Amino acid sequence: MAELGFIGIGIMGKPMAGHLLAAGHTVHVYDIVPAGVDELVGKGAVKCASGKEVAEKGEIIFVMVPDTPDVDNALFGAGGVAEGVSSGKIVVDMSSISPVETKQFAARLAEKGVDMIDAPVSGGQVGAENAALSIMVGGKEQVFSKVRPYFELMGKNINLVGGNGDGQTAKVANQIIVALTIEAVGEALLFASKAGADPENVRQALLGGFAQSRILEVHGERMIKRTFNPGFRIRHQQKDLNNALSAARVLGLSLPGTANAQELYNAVVADGGADLDHSALVTALERMAKHTVA
Amino acid sequence: MAELGFIGIGIMGKPMAGHLLAAGHTVHVYDIVPAGVDELVGKGAVKCASGKEVAEKGEIIFVMVPDTPDVDNALFGAGGVAEGVSSGKIVVDMSSISPVETKQFAARLAEKGVDMIDAPVSGGQVGAENAALSIMVGGKEQVFSKVRPYFELMGKNINLVGGNGDGQTAKVANQIIVALTIEAVGEALLFASKAGADPENVRQALLGGFAQSRILEVHGERMIKRTFNPGFRIRHQQKDLNNALSAARVLGLSLPGTANAQELYNAVVADGGADLDHSALVTALERMAKHTVA
Repeated sequence: MAELGFIGIGIMGKPMAGHLLAAGHTVHVYDIVPAGVDELVGKGAVKCASGKEVAEKGEIIFVMVPDTPDVDNALFGAGGVAEGVSSGKIVVDMSSISPVETKQFAARLAEKGVDMIDAPVSGGQVGAENAALSIMVGGKEQVFSKVRPYFELMGKNINLVGGNGDGQTAKVANQIIVALTIEAVGEALLFASKAGADPENVRQALLGGFAQSRILEVHGERMIKRTFNPGFRIRHQQKDLNNALSAARVLGLSLPGTANAQELYNAVVADGGADLDHSALVTALERMAKHTVA
Repeated sequence: MAELGFIGIGIMGKPMAGHLLAAGHTVHVYDIVPAGVDELVGKGAVKCASGKEVAEKGEIIFVMVPDTPDVDNALFGAGGVAEGVSSGKIVVDMSSISPVETKQFAARLAEKGVDMIDAPVSGGQVGAENAALSIMVGGKEQVFSKVRPYFELMGKNINLVGGNGDGQTAKVANQIIVALTIEAVGEALLFASKAGADPENVRQALLGGFAQSRILEVHGERMIKRTFNPGFRIRHQQKDLNNALSAARVLGLSLPGTANAQELYNAVVADGGADLDHSALVTALERMAKHTVA
């Protein structure tokens, strides 16, 4: 059994760290918010006073926090991982953040002899709770091999995509496709409904052809049944698309469709929908058309 | 064996009418371009001098022509179907055209006691040749029942979506999703490549999650392998998206993503790509980024 660290015991991190704990590992935990930490300590986790302490005690340190500045702070802020970590240890960032800054973080840790891998996930809270996350990994193959047994306690579809940052790049690519496919399905079903067709009949007819997607199956059904409880919250989709658009600007790349989808999410949020499921993008289209899919 | 009519013996119509012929039916054929007609006559089809003559001789008259004005002309132009058709016959329009005008065409034929159903297809030339088309049908159920045996000679995924025009509406919805999903995959793979990741590794990692789609499978691979031979030509995708955008304007509906995808297709055509496969939308994004996916 291993000495592990886990920083960020929130909606995602708590069940993920819980799976490591349930497998018998010692898990040293820290979060700036104490609630999740206390719950895990009740299940046998070891409470730490800082990320520094987690890094001193754990051999592999997992990080699961909201955004790029949070990872920066957890790793390199006062009392952070960099102050406690030592050569030979591994940092695994499972947050969904900028691939550009991820490469910089990995380089800074490498100067200390510390390997970092980025391993963002998709599948949301339900995937985290059911240990069914998709995990997209960037880093060295031999480091991935060491961490893989722990990934298998948290997820199912686990892929080493490439070197440092490539896991985050894959996650950004995933979110670009998800957001734009949601817009595709939303525009199509709204068109169908406004033209007088039954959107569910259209959805069924289209599932057998080239328009088939998981999004048409799952989120198309949400649009028709009006089940916009999350799922995956629009505020998180906005953050991920911001990572896409910010990185694109740095990389020298135009993403006109992604920018358009982000604007529609902004419109949903302007209407109070930040905590709706990301399939509620369709409501921005619906307001423009003064017509709903169903 | 039935007396059938078929107007429009082009890339799609020729193999479709050929399947009806091969099943032993008498097929009366007409096209303004004689090449396909002569080939089918060599296989036993009966050549007609006009759409009027096809409508006089066939009990069920299939139409497969490029666009809305072509259907209008085939049905209601000089020497067209309306001049030869009589009460109790059925007109089956398998072209991909405007759902709004389709309803008007059906109403005009209904005044003559003629039932029309719209039955646009997806699957392209390969689907037509292999009798594997998806067929989206709008019209009365009892009319659909009479035509269904002939659809089964031409296609596999056959769905009655609703009343007149709803087949065309489903086809438009299909093309909206296909075009926007192609843009989604294009932006995602270009982002991945520009960020330094292997786009094929990213594609593989994403196929297991919510970004999964037939488009990511088939057209994502085309973008990476640079196989832009059609497939489905951009000039036809432009026509279908024009049907979407024109109908949306009539219906009072904003389709910002579809409009954006159409503009990218316009850019590919400006660069000489009208006859490339629709997955070549990515080349417009690539020119803006001065970088290719692979």
